[in-house]
Amino acid sequence: MMAHLHRKPIPVQESVEKVMEHQYKGQKETVSIHECDERILAEDLLATNPVPPFHKSPYDGFALRSEDTQHLSRENPGTFVVNETVGAGHRASRPLKEGEAVRIMTGAEIPEGADCVAMFEICRTSEENGQSYMTLKRKMEHNQNIIEMGSETKEGEVLVEKGSVINPGVKALLATFGYSMVSVYRKPRVGVFATGTELLDVDEPLTPGKIRNSNAHMILAQLERSGAEGAYLGKLDDDFDLCFEAISQSLTDYDLIITTGGVSVGDYDLMPDIYEKLGANVLFNKVAMRPGSVTTVAEQNGQLLYGLSGNPSACYVGFELFVYPMIQSIMGRQRPYHRRITAALGEDFKKPNPFTRFVRGALDFSDGQVMVTPSGMDKSAVVSSLAHTNTLIVLKGGTRGYTKGDQVEAILLEEKNGQYIFQEG
Amino acid sequence: MMAHLHRKPIPVQESVEKVMEHQYKGQKETVSIHECDERILAEDLLATNPVPPFHKSPYDGFALRSEDTQHLSRENPGTFVVNETVGAGHRASRPLKEGEAVRIMTGAEIPEGADCVAMFEICRTSEENGQSYMTLKRKMEHNQNIIEMGSETKEGEVLVEKGSVINPGVKALLATFGYSMVSVYRKPRVGVFATGTELLDVDEPLTPGKIRNSNAHMILAQLERSGAEGAYLGKLDDDFDLCFEAISQSLTDYDLIITTGGVSVGDYDLMPDIYEKLGANVLFNKVAMRPGSVTTVAEQNGQLLYGLSGNPSACYVGFELFVYPMIQSIMGRQRPYHRRITAALGEDFKKPNPFTRFVRGALDFSDGQVMVTPSGMDKSAVVSSLAHTNTLIVLKGGTRGYTKGDQVEAILLEEKNGQYIFQEG
Repeated sequence: MMAHLHRKPIPVQESVEKVMEHQYKGQKETVSIHECDERILAEDLLATNPVPPFHKSPYDGFALRSEDTQHLSRENPGTFVVNETVGAGHRASRPLKEGEAVRIMTGAEIPEGADCVAMFEICRTSEENGQSYMTLKRKMEHNQNIIEMGSETKEGEVLVEKGSVINPGVKALLATFGYSMVSVYRKPRVGVFATGTELLDVDEPLTPGKIRNSNAHMILAQLERSGAEGAYLGKLDDDFDLCFEAISQSLTDYDLIITTGGVSVGDYDLMPDIYEKLGANVLFNKVAMRPGSVTTVAEQNGQLLYGLSGNPSACYVGFELFVYPMIQSIMGRQRPYHRRITAALGEDFKKPNPFTRFVRGALDFSDGQVMVTPSGMDKSAVVSSLAHTNTLIVLKGGTRGYTKGDQVEAILLEEKNGQYIFQEG
Repeated sequence: MMAHLHRKPIPVQESVEKVMEHQYKGQKETVSIHECDERILAEDLLATNPVPPFHKSPYDGFALRSEDTQHLSRENPGTFVVNETVGAGHRASRPLKEGEAVRIMTGAEIPEGADCVAMFEICRTSEENGQSYMTLKRKMEHNQNIIEMGSETKEGEVLVEKGSVINPGVKALLATFGYSMVSVYRKPRVGVFATGTELLDVDEPLTPGKIRNSNAHMILAQLERSGAEGAYLGKLDDDFDLCFEAISQSLTDYDLIITTGGVSVGDYDLMPDIYEKLGANVLFNKVAMRPGSVTTVAEQNGQLLYGLSGNPSACYVGFELFVYPMIQSIMGRQRPYHRRITAALGEDFKKPNPFTRFVRGALDFSDGQVMVTPSGMDKSAVVSSLAHTNTLIVLKGGTRGYTKGDQVEAILLEEKNGQYIFQEG
C-alpha cells in the first residue's frame, strides 16, 4: 500500500533504457504476399535472379550483329533480312544469322546471336515479294543499345534488409523476385486492461460519478498504429483480488500486458502491490517527466507489465515512450525508436517545469523549416487535444518556459523509418 | 491504333484538376468502434455530454460548504464532522449538511451541497468515539478547487470535424462520448488489372522473355496505404478483345478501375482504343512530366478509368498524383491531397529536363531544416529505389538540373493530415 513512499523519479532516458534492456526479437511467420503490407521483413530480400533477367532492348528497333555493320556508312548502306518481330514477353524463334535483323520492341529479349540494337528512327524498312528488309547507314558498336543481363541487379544481391517495413516499393520488389510467401515477424500480442471502478464501457449510459473508459480504446489504436495486435481484456474494478486474478491469468497469453490506472498515490492504487505479489521486478515506478510521472514498468521472466497512468495524456505518452519501441524490437525493427528531430516551437509555452515535459503537438513545414505546435490546451485530463497530434514536443526540464521560435526536440509519431537510439538521432 | 499521334501533353496541375473535376463523396457506413482505426469520420464528432459530466475534485481532500469556513483562521480553526468518503466512480449517499465535510478523492464527484474542496495537505484529521473529524484553519472561496461541470467541453460542441482520420486521439474521444458505433465513409473499391503478355504471376518461375507482374502488387499496397480496398483482377495478355471484355465487365463492381501497361506508343498499346470503344471521355493521354508522361485517364458516367504506365516508377507516380486524391475525396477527406512542402535537396540532380520530374526520395531532418534526398538511382525501370521512398521530389521543368541545397518542392506520401489544394500549400 505504501509503495509510493519509496518512489524515486529516474530520468526519462534511463527509464527507456531499463525497459529496452529486456527487448527481444519475436518469432517469425510466413504470410502471403497479399497480406504482407506494413509487416516487417524477417529475412533479407534477395534478388532471386539478375535484373534484367536477360539482355534486353531499351528501344523499339532492330537487333542485329555489330560485326555485320562495320563497313556501313551514309554512302555505303547495308540491307538486312527481317524474318521476325519480338515483342516484350516473347523471344525469337531461333538464333540470328549473319545478314539478318530482328524487329524488337522496348523491353524485349535480345535474340541469341545479336549484340546491338539500331533504334527504329535510324532504320529504313522495305518489303519485296513478301519479304521484309531493313536498311542501315551506320556502324554499330558491340553492346550498343543493349541493357545487359544483371546490369541493374546481380543475382543474390540484398535489396532490402530484414527489419524493414514492407511499403509499396518493397512489395513491388517481393513480387518481382517471386516471393509469393513472405517471411515476416509475428505481430506481438498485447493484452490491455483498464482499471478503475469509475469506468463505464463505451456502450453504457453515463451515470453519476462515472466516466466511460477511453484509455483502453486509445491504446488499442496506438497498438494498431504501431503494428501490434491488441486485445481488450476488459475493465476491472479497483479491487486487489479481482485485478490480481485477471492479470496473473492473462500472463501466458500475451507478449506484453498493459494496464491503465491504479498507479498513482490515491487510496485505491493497486498495481505496485500486484507486481509485488506476482514477484515481478519493478524497473521503475516514477519517471522525471510530465505527464506520466507515475508510469510503472515491471518485468517477470522476461515479460513486461506496463502500468500506465489512468490520465489520458499520461497514458498516451507512456505508451509511445515505453511500449512503442519494445513492440518494434519484438517485430525485428532495426530502428525501434520514433524519429526524434529538432524543430522550431510554433507558439509560446510559458509554463516552467522542473521535469521534462512531453506536449502533444502537430508537425508543420514552412519554407524548408520544420515547426511543431502544441495541439491546443495541454491539460493532462483533456483528451480532445489528441485529435490532431502527430508528434510529442519535448520540453526539457529546468527551464523557465519556452518562446515561439525556440529550437526544441520533437518525437514523430507517424514517421515510419524510425531511428536506432532513443535520443535525438 | 494511332491515338498516340493526337497526344498533346498538358501540365501536371491541369491534369490533376481534370481528374478532380469528377470527384464525389462516397457512401457512409456504420462500423464498430473496434474497427474504426484509420477510417474517415462521416459525421462531426460531438460532445454527447459536458466534460467533466459533473463538478469534480482536482485533488484528494475534503469537500465542504465555503460558507461554513468564512470565520476560520489559524487562530480560529473549525472542526467538521466527516461521515463518508467518496472515491472516483462513487457518489455521496446524501447531500452535505452544515458543519459536515466529505472525504473526496481526485476525480470524484463533488457531493450535493458542497461548493469547495480543501486539499488533504491543509487539513488535520482526528477520530473520537469512532467518529471522524477534520479540522481546517483557513477560509475557503465558493468554487475553490472545483472543476466545474462542462468547463472543459460543453455538451453539443464539435470536437472533431467530419472528414478527419480516426487516429488514437480521435478514437479516445469516440469512446469518451459513447460512440460504440461510428459513422464513416465506405472504403472505395478499386479494381486493378495488369496488362502485358510478358507478365508472369508472382508464383510462376521466370521463363525466357518474361518478367513477374510487380505493378499490380505495388498498386494494391498503395491502395491499402491510401485507405481504399483494392481487388486484383488479374493480368491480361495484350489482346484487345480480351482486355475489352475484362475491363467492361468489371465496371459495375468497382468505384475506380486501374490498369497498368498498354498506354505507351508501342505496337501493342491498347488502352486508348479500349476507352474509345467503351465510349469513355478521355480526360488526357499525355502529361508534361517524367516519369509517367503516357498516363491516361478516362471517365465514363462519372466513373474513372486510370490507364497507368507499365513502367514501375511511372506507375507509382501516376497513382500518387491522380488516384490518391480521388480516393481521399470519395472517402470524404476535406484535405484530399498529399502534403506538399519546400525542402532542401540532399544531393545534386544534374539531369536537365524540359518536363517536371517526380523523383522518388526520402525525407530527412537536420537542425530544424527539412531535406529530401533521391532514393538512389532514379532509372525509371528500376523498382528497387522505391524501397525507402516516402516522398516525391518535384523538380520543375525548364531547368538545367539542380544542386545540393537548392530549395525544391516535395510531396509527402506518408503524412496523414494532407492539404486542401494540389499545389504547395
